[in-house]
Amino acid sequence: MTLLLSNDDVSNLLTMPECIAILEEAYRELAEGRGVSRTRSDCMTPTARQDALYSLKSMDGVIPKLGVGAIRINSDIVTWPQRGNNIRREKIRAAPGNRYVGLVLLFSTDTGEPLAIFPDGVMQRMRVGAANGLGAKYLAREAANTVGILGSGWQAGAQLMAVCAVRAISSIRCFSPNANNCGAFAQAMSELLDVPVTAVATPEDAIRGADIVMCATNTLDPIFFAHWIEPGMHLSSIKRPEIDAHAVKRADRVVIHTHDARPIHVVTKDLVVPERADGRGWESAGGLDFDKLPTLPDLILGRARGRASDQEVTCFINNLGLGYQFAAVGALLYRKAKESCAGRDLPTDWFTEEVHP
Amino acid sequence: MTLLLSNDDVSNLLTMPECIAILEEAYRELAEGRGVSRTRSDCMTPTARQDALYSLKSMDGVIPKLGVGAIRINSDIVTWPQRGNNIRREKIRAAPGNRYVGLVLLFSTDTGEPLAIFPDGVMQRMRVGAANGLGAKYLAREAANTVGILGSGWQAGAQLMAVCAVRAISSIRCFSPNANNCGAFAQAMSELLDVPVTAVATPEDAIRGADIVMCATNTLDPIFFAHWIEPGMHLSSIKRPEIDAHAVKRADRVVIHTHDARPIHVVTKDLVVPERADGRGWESAGGLDFDKLPTLPDLILGRARGRASDQEVTCFINNLGLGYQFAAVGALLYRKAKESCAGRDLPTDWFTEEVHP
Repeated sequence: MTLLLSNDDVSNLLTMPECIAILEEAYRELAEGRGVSRTRSDCMTPTARQDALYSLKSMDGVIPKLGVGAIRINSDIVTWPQRGNNIRREKIRAAPGNRYVGLVLLFSTDTGEPLAIFPDGVMQRMRVGAANGLGAKYLAREAANTVGILGSGWQAGAQLMAVCAVRAISSIRCFSPNANNCGAFAQAMSELLDVPVTAVATPEDAIRGADIVMCATNTLDPIFFAHWIEPGMHLSSIKRPEIDAHAVKRADRVVIHTHDARPIHVVTKDLVVPERADGRGWESAGGLDFDKLPTLPDLILGRARGRASDQEVTCFINNLGLGYQFAAVGALLYRKAKESCAGRDLPTDWFTEEVHP
Repeated sequence: MTLLLSNDDVSNLLTMPECIAILEEAYRELAEGRGVSRTRSDCMTPTARQDALYSLKSMDGVIPKLGVGAIRINSDIVTWPQRGNNIRREKIRAAPGNRYVGLVLLFSTDTGEPLAIFPDGVMQRMRVGAANGLGAKYLAREAANTVGILGSGWQAGAQLMAVCAVRAISSIRCFSPNANNCGAFAQAMSELLDVPVTAVATPEDAIRGADIVMCATNTLDPIFFAHWIEPGMHLSSIKRPEIDAHAVKRADRVVIHTHDARPIHVVTKDLVVPERADGRGWESAGGLDFDKLPTLPDLILGRARGRASDQEVTCFINNLGLGYQFAAVGALLYRKAKESCAGRDLPTDWFTEEVHP
């Protein structure tokens, strides 16, 4: 049978410490060349709507040690509205029932069969959180116990779950431009993590004195700047532009997620994509060369050097996601779902065939 | 609802003339830059079996004019056995029930929603056939009425359906190394096409005097050679190495399917793939530069010149498949399935989500 799982199933079955552990193992496999990852691709075209584009995004990965391959697919209607001073990328709930479209298909490397199909949303934030958690595990000071976070959305929650899984965090300060969201987020996360989370009025209030600064927004513009850096800080970002390039350059150690730094973009002729999708402007502004920076798998395997002293400033940039992460966390999810008989069994014959394709 | 279709549904709903017509329209869109196609990628790793590899293959395409995007996925256990003098690529029926794993997911560019899910096998041969049919439509002599075909398998049948859809074919000769298969194929195709198909004993018997020569095998070695060429012939191949490079060079007009000539290969360290996957050796042997050859979309749009006289030798090489083809034929399939209430309705909510992915 092929297991159909929902976001609720994924949410019930996955824990952040387990996601971090399976990804750590998977990154070792990747660094050793025993796992493979295919760079994300984005096919973009116009839609009937003037202000929106259609985007078909896919990314694949295979981990023989875990016995799985995965493909993650997003079929999105995308807009780039101005929010306050920043431009943001926002997906529209255009599918029936006001829903988004993101799917993961998990396959067996032994039989090729589709083991499971599930939406990508909950796993998406868990794997982003877990990757930044691993960045903090290998780069932040051992004694780090305070966190300042910029952002109070869906991703920010997983970032806090992850940092609390790798360090004994005793206090968190949170800033986001919408004070209501920020307050509600602080309260919910305090309860979930059993750590006091305080909403504050400015980014500086969140950052000042924090051992670990986490950026977790969907902005396309920098939100953390060089003059906010303090000795010993660990900086963490879930996407390329959040930490200003000059701030990145000030760090003593910078590690990125992957050298698959730019997605494969395939767009129709004359299509204008508001996003600075390749990030080259941002990099060159700070004189950064991402190709020369070490990656998280290098760091985990000990090929890249971690923090050398408590005074050093470290920085982890989760510059691009990998389908490979969905294979790793998917393997964990599948095992746990089978153990607890979660999900809905669909006939595997629906997704396999008699004829040689 | 999301429509689940079987290979039987696909087979019942698609006709070759309609597949050729929709692909012709789609190729125009592609050539004009209004459709997009993402090059195939193959992730390959070892499996538990010594003689087999695991391959996770994917390819995407979007055609706004037809309102669809598609992704085609293959999750294969692959071997490369020696068959007679040739090495062949063969997939193993490793999934439960001795089945293969190939899937197409079709999405709406208006809402992003998954419109349909179906196995790729039947559509795979229809789109290969239709592409070579378009090659013959634009390159073969108008009066061409005899066909010689090398191969008697799954792909060969669609090749004959396609050539009969674009020219008034009155006789077909067929050769394949297995005389039993070849005889059964000839009989079945005679009945299906209402054109006499004769099994012959040697490749030369099939080719001599044929207006159109079609290669439709899964060999990785050349099977058609330069000294078999006759004036006015149209040569057609479903994969790169079938027509010897020296024979290709002898042709007056050569058109290939796509400049996406090489799949993106991502393999584990030290993995040996028996296939000469990038085909560079084959090209350079004949001094061919695929990047400079015109493509089928160029030919259809009139950007590349077709046959200039009845004496010219023309050649179409279907060098690599495109996910884009599955979007085009998928749009046709979906329309016809809705019209005839075919398939099984699955809740679209199974494949969409509430949370922002």
